Amino acid sequence: MLTVFGTMALDTTRTPFRIEERILGGAATFASLSAGMFARTGMVAAIGEDMPLSHIEAVRSKGVDTKGIVTVSGGKCFHYDSEFDYNLSNRKTLKTELNVISDFDPVIPEEYATSEYVYLANNDPRQNMAILRHFEKPKLVVCDTIEYWIHTARDDVVKMIGKTDGVVINDSEARLLCNEVNIAKCARQIMSFGPKFAIIKKGEHGAVLFTKDGEVFPATAFFLDEISDPTGAGDSFAGGFLGHIARKDKVDFRTMKEAVIYGNVMGSFAVEDFGVRRLLAITKDDVEGRYQKYRNLVQF
Amino acid sequence: MLTVFGTMALDTTRTPFRIEERILGGAATFASLSAGMFARTGMVAAIGEDMPLSHIEAVRSKGVDTKGIVTVSGGKCFHYDSEFDYNLSNRKTLKTELNVISDFDPVIPEEYATSEYVYLANNDPRQNMAILRHFEKPKLVVCDTIEYWIHTARDDVVKMIGKTDGVVINDSEARLLCNEVNIAKCARQIMSFGPKFAIIKKGEHGAVLFTKDGEVFPATAFFLDEISDPTGAGDSFAGGFLGHIARKDKVDFRTMKEAVIYGNVMGSFAVEDFGVRRLLAITKDDVEGRYQKYRNLVQF
Repeated sequence: MLTVFGTMALDTTRTPFRIEERILGGAATFASLSAGMFARTGMVAAIGEDMPLSHIEAVRSKGVDTKGIVTVSGGKCFHYDSEFDYNLSNRKTLKTELNVISDFDPVIPEEYATSEYVYLANNDPRQNMAILRHFEKPKLVVCDTIEYWIHTARDDVVKMIGKTDGVVINDSEARLLCNEVNIAKCARQIMSFGPKFAIIKKGEHGAVLFTKDGEVFPATAFFLDEISDPTGAGDSFAGGFLGHIARKDKVDFRTMKEAVIYGNVMGSFAVEDFGVRRLLAITKDDVEGRYQKYRNLVQF
Repeated sequence: MLTVFGTMALDTTRTPFRIEERILGGAATFASLSAGMFARTGMVAAIGEDMPLSHIEAVRSKGVDTKGIVTVSGGKCFHYDSEFDYNLSNRKTLKTELNVISDFDPVIPEEYATSEYVYLANNDPRQNMAILRHFEKPKLVVCDTIEYWIHTARDDVVKMIGKTDGVVINDSEARLLCNEVNIAKCARQIMSFGPKFAIIKKGEHGAVLFTKDGEVFPATAFFLDEISDPTGAGDSFAGGFLGHIARKDKVDFRTMKEAVIYGNVMGSFAVEDFGVRRLLAITKDDVEGRYQKYRNLVQF
C-alpha cells in the first residue's frame, strides 16, 4: 500500500483565459488520484467543513482510500489562490489560507501503518517527520518540499530529507535549497542529506533522476500541444512515480526510470484541464496508452 | 556536399569563472566543424586581416573546406563580446563589431554551387537570400535567425524563411518572431511561411522537431555534469543535424530524428570548453560514442 500525506484543498486558479474558484485541488489529491491508477493508495489530509462531500466521493470513486481524510470540526479548508501569466509558466500567489492545516497533528488509520510506500508532499517538514513515526517499516519514503519551507524552516527541511529514501523537487526549489545553480550538484547535495535518489522536476522540460550510485536519467516531458492549468503537475508526477514503484514493488534503477516516465505521463494529464478534473476523467487504459505513446514519441 | 554560410569571428567570452579574449568563434565555424565530422563541408565567411592564419589552418585540419572564406583587405573580423551570468544561461552582449560582415556580398567557390545541402546561419536575411542564388539545385536549405534580425528586418526574415526547407531556431527567438508563447504554435506559424519542418532549440533542455505532416519529436539534451561556455551550442547543433542528413543523403522523418540527436551530441561537445576548442579536439569516434551513450542514457 502507498500512503500519501498532503493537502486536500480548495484552489482558486486564474489564467488569462479562465478563472476557476474554489475547485478541488491540493498536493495529496493530485498525488493520490495519480497513484491510485497504479496501486492501492490511501490519502491523509486535513479538511474543513466547507469541503463538499461530493469531492471526497469523487476521489473515492477513482479507487483511492479516503479513510485518512480528517474533517476538523469548525475548520475551513486550505485555500490557495494564484494567478498564471500569459505563458502559463509563471505563477503569482495571491492568497494562501492555511486554515486547518496550520497546526495539524497528522494521524493515520491503523491499516495504513503497514504501508510499504509513503509519499510526504510539500507539507510542513515537522508534520512530515511526525507522521513518519506512525509507519511500521516502509520500504520507501519520498518527499517533496517548496520555497515556503526552505525559507522558513530550512533546518527542518534538511532533517526531514534525511529521514527519506528519495526526494522529488522542482528545479527552482532545489537551487534555492542548495544555493547552487547546477542541478546535478543540487541533486548530489540533497543526496548527501541521506536519500538514495533525487528527482529534479523541470516543468514543461521534464525531469532528471539522479541516484547515489551516480546513475542519471534525463526524461523530456510528454509533448502536449496546449495546456490548461499547470497546477498539480508536480504532485501528479510524484503520484505516478510512486504508484508505478508500488505496483512493481521494486526500487531498482530500471523500475525507477519507468516510474519517471509514468510520472511525466500523469503530469501531462493533470495539466490538460483545471484542477483534478482530467485525473478524475481518465482510465488505466488512458495511462498505459499514453505511456506507449511517449515511448513512440521519443524513439529514434 | 554541405555549404555553411555564416560568421567566422573573434569572440570575447566572459563567464564568472574565466575570461577568454578574441578566441576563434562564429556561427559558421561552429556549424562547419560540427558538420565536418559527418560529411564534406565547405565554409563561406568573410574575415578581416586580423584573423590568425592558424585558425583557418585549425578548421581545415578537421576536414572542412575553407576555400569559401574570403579575406577582406584592410578589414577587421566580426567581433562579439559577451558575458554570461553565474548560471551560464543568461548572456549579456557587451559589444558587437560587425566589421567585414556588415556589407558582405557573399560569393561562393564554383565547386560549392552544386551543394545538395545548404545551411544559412543567423546572418543578415538579405545576405542569406543573396547567397542562395549561387546554388544550382540544393535538396535542402536550412536557416537560423536571431533577435537582431527579427527586430530590424522581420519582413526579410519571413521572406528568407520562405525560401528554405527547414528552420532551426531558439525558443526565445521563435516566440519573438511569432509573437506567440506556445512553441508548437510558433513552429506551425514558421512552417506557414514555407518550410517543411521547424526545430525549436531549448538550450540545456534539448530541442523539439516539428514537421508539416504534424509529426513531433521532443529530445532532451545530452546530460552534462558541467559546462564551460554555452557559446556556439546552437550552431553546433545545426551543423550536427545537417551533417548527419548530408551523410545519409535522406530527409525522411527517421533520419531527421537521428539528426536531432546528433545535433544534441555536437552541442554538448561544444559547451565543454571555450570557443571551438572542444570541437577541434574530438574525433568521429567520440561523436559516435556519445551518440550511443545518449541512446543508453534515455533508454527505459
